Amino acid sequence: MDRREPEIIFFPFRDDFTWEGVPTKKYKSPDGSWDRVKRNEIVKTDEIHYRYFEIQEGGYSTLEKHQHPHIVMALRGRGTVVVGDQIFEMKPYDVLHIPSWKPHQLLANRGDVFGFICVVPAQRDKPTRLTPQEVENLIRANPRLKEIIRY
Amino acid sequence: MDRREPEIIFFPFRDDFTWEGVPTKKYKSPDGSWDRVKRNEIVKTDEIHYRYFEIQEGGYSTLEKHQHPHIVMALRGRGTVVVGDQIFEMKPYDVLHIPSWKPHQLLANRGDVFGFICVVPAQRDKPTRLTPQEVENLIRANPRLKEIIRY
Repeated sequence: MDRREPEIIFFPFRDDFTWEGVPTKKYKSPDGSWDRVKRNEIVKTDEIHYRYFEIQEGGYSTLEKHQHPHIVMALRGRGTVVVGDQIFEMKPYDVLHIPSWKPHQLLANRGDVFGFICVVPAQRDKPTRLTPQEVENLIRANPRLKEIIRY
Repeated sequence: MDRREPEIIFFPFRDDFTWEGVPTKKYKSPDGSWDRVKRNEIVKTDEIHYRYFEIQEGGYSTLEKHQHPHIVMALRGRGTVVVGDQIFEMKPYDVLHIPSWKPHQLLANRGDVFGFICVVPAQRDKPTRLTPQEVENLIRANPRLKEIIRY
């Protein structure tokens, strides 16, 4: 036990919602589908990736779907999350399970920074953006979505 | 889209550190290896289990090891976590990666309730308790452990 573990295993939280040893990156390449989202990949094991995302006021993640589910826990501020045709308002520590293949989008509320943990399997499929027809179907199922989703 | 998702996907947080729709259980069967620990299994997907554990003052989890790693994020109060011969003091939102096969124990600090998220693969091996020889080796590597670990 003389040899200290070379891998960093402890990530202290800093008051600005970053973690020591974890670089803040952009969410993904800009493609017009998202706005004002930052990504912190806190821990990546062989099986699980544990990330923190932060959406600034007016920002939103991509409206997308994929096979792998998400486990989301709000940590900072309040946000709105669309899952299929349902709308959830999240406050800190609320937890949401986004099931396989459900279209979803996360948005910061007005006047709020929305930060959340998002846990995914390390091995996962690539997200797919929704077609205009799929977006139309969602809005038909829940007309309130028209004023919420961004795409 | 007429049919609403039958599965519960949203787990609102309550001020007493429980989640709507999530029963609080005991940590595991009493076997003398742990004390004053509660378990909340918030979300279990096919691949990932996302749980919240809470340790009352003076309580501690089992000193154990296993193949599967843990991802731990403190949420409530402060605690002490032993990983191999290292000792970590955790405050809310600090994140710790407990690597494969590292002996570990989580303990509530004096005067504190220590609550934390612990993420694990759904498919995982059974934990093994440490032998007296292994405990002795840990204490030899870091004598401070003698006053901390409980077994």
